[in-house]
Amino acid sequence: MKGKVYLVGAGPGDPDLLTVKALRLLRTAEAVLYDDLVAPEILTLVSPAAQLHNVGKRCGKKRILQDEINFLMIALAESGLQVVRLKSGDPMVFGRAGEEIEFLRRARIPFEIVPGVTSALAAAAATQIPLTHRRLSSSLVLLTAHQAAGSEAANWSKLAASGSTLVIYMPGKNYGEVSAKLLGAGLTADRACAIISRASSAQQQIHRTTIGGLSSAPHLPAPTLLVVGEVVRFADRSLDRFLVPATSDHQIAISPLLSKFRFPVNPESDEEPFA
Amino acid sequence: MKGKVYLVGAGPGDPDLLTVKALRLLRTAEAVLYDDLVAPEILTLVSPAAQLHNVGKRCGKKRILQDEINFLMIALAESGLQVVRLKSGDPMVFGRAGEEIEFLRRARIPFEIVPGVTSALAAAAATQIPLTHRRLSSSLVLLTAHQAAGSEAANWSKLAASGSTLVIYMPGKNYGEVSAKLLGAGLTADRACAIISRASSAQQQIHRTTIGGLSSAPHLPAPTLLVVGEVVRFADRSLDRFLVPATSDHQIAISPLLSKFRFPVNPESDEEPFA
Repeated sequence: MKGKVYLVGAGPGDPDLLTVKALRLLRTAEAVLYDDLVAPEILTLVSPAAQLHNVGKRCGKKRILQDEINFLMIALAESGLQVVRLKSGDPMVFGRAGEEIEFLRRARIPFEIVPGVTSALAAAAATQIPLTHRRLSSSLVLLTAHQAAGSEAANWSKLAASGSTLVIYMPGKNYGEVSAKLLGAGLTADRACAIISRASSAQQQIHRTTIGGLSSAPHLPAPTLLVVGEVVRFADRSLDRFLVPATSDHQIAISPLLSKFRFPVNPESDEEPFA
Repeated sequence: MKGKVYLVGAGPGDPDLLTVKALRLLRTAEAVLYDDLVAPEILTLVSPAAQLHNVGKRCGKKRILQDEINFLMIALAESGLQVVRLKSGDPMVFGRAGEEIEFLRRARIPFEIVPGVTSALAAAAATQIPLTHRRLSSSLVLLTAHQAAGSEAANWSKLAASGSTLVIYMPGKNYGEVSAKLLGAGLTADRACAIISRASSAQQQIHRTTIGGLSSAPHLPAPTLLVVGEVVRFADRSLDRFLVPATSDHQIAISPLLSKFRFPVNPESDEEPFA
């Protein structure tokens, strides 16, 4: 009897932000194939009896090819196992699920897709940045920095010019380059943006700046997201180490304690934030 | 002692797609303020001892004003209760969370935001439509049909012209009007799209068509989403009542059983799908 493959979104990292279904599947899976970006805390939820396969391809190292992942997934399912293919965030957003779906269909392996909280949503919640806003932004664009090259550049300009909130996944280490691309796409240097590192984890950090200030921004640990748009001015200032104007550069770490018992700070108030 | 407000994403409707944190908060909340779009199955998870307030404002009926929601939320928290403000999908995407955040900050009420699976992701998973794809679409735009009016029309054109997958929340009942707006924004009549109704619920339905065919599409029960882009051609054809080309109009209901034990069908195959 054939097994089944579940393409499962692991969410942003905090095990509390797994879906109920994802948690149940992780506990009962007989084999789990996971990407590098999946948080270690989430892997501890997998049954000790299950096979665990790291199939990460991070930083262009390509330890394993997509075809190898596909073949492993199918071999495990063909041998009758319940297989979880675990992807950080949501499998249908920048997860190359389309290619795995085609492969599974061709191999006639039963499969099911379980959505997850994509990291843009988790970062927005953790930093109190609404991604759409009645007065400021009526649409949301999710994109990657990679696509700013070549034929995609024109499309990037259109997206940037649309007035939407942009969330750039995998902005890379060269913030100056991203800044230049955003300016080239027609955005102004004073447009607010924020780099959010390891959203939803105890190591989460946020650095608020502007497109002009991006090139001198500190490098935060991957995975990071870059949120661009006036909605960034809503970011919770109690997350900042010092109470400074939103346009200044500053970087903070949210302690696990603070992130659990966080109090909002009135931006008009002179009081010290919790930090 | 003040209570606390949790702005919580209820996800698309299936209680299995709640996050672990949202489920725990629903079970322990002392008051829950929910929108009309929150699925009844999810409300059954709330403790019987908790206050339940429907604060829906659907279909322009405005039974309750946003200010009234804000005051109720704050009054309950001021009286020391743990309050869950429950929004369908994710609170930071088309959820007017920005306004509630401002209000909570001004009232100095402790609050926390819990992200959820936004319905675009759930619809994509349930219908096997990858929202981004290495060959077909490298970005994803979430927008609403409302914003196609007035000054937003130009922005809509830019988003449509970007080559991104578009997911239109609340496309409304006038599919012909949406079709005209998409054509006006520069998309061609043969561009694939799909109306997905009640994604992730037992009553889920999908109708695959093209922008040109939208005006003659059947009206599916709200809430619906409209997915526009070539990625729609990936949609699971076993969800179709009859195996027909992706460009034809057809409408299917996924039975709860099928949605749990769904087998993929090879698009090249002549076999009958499960229906």
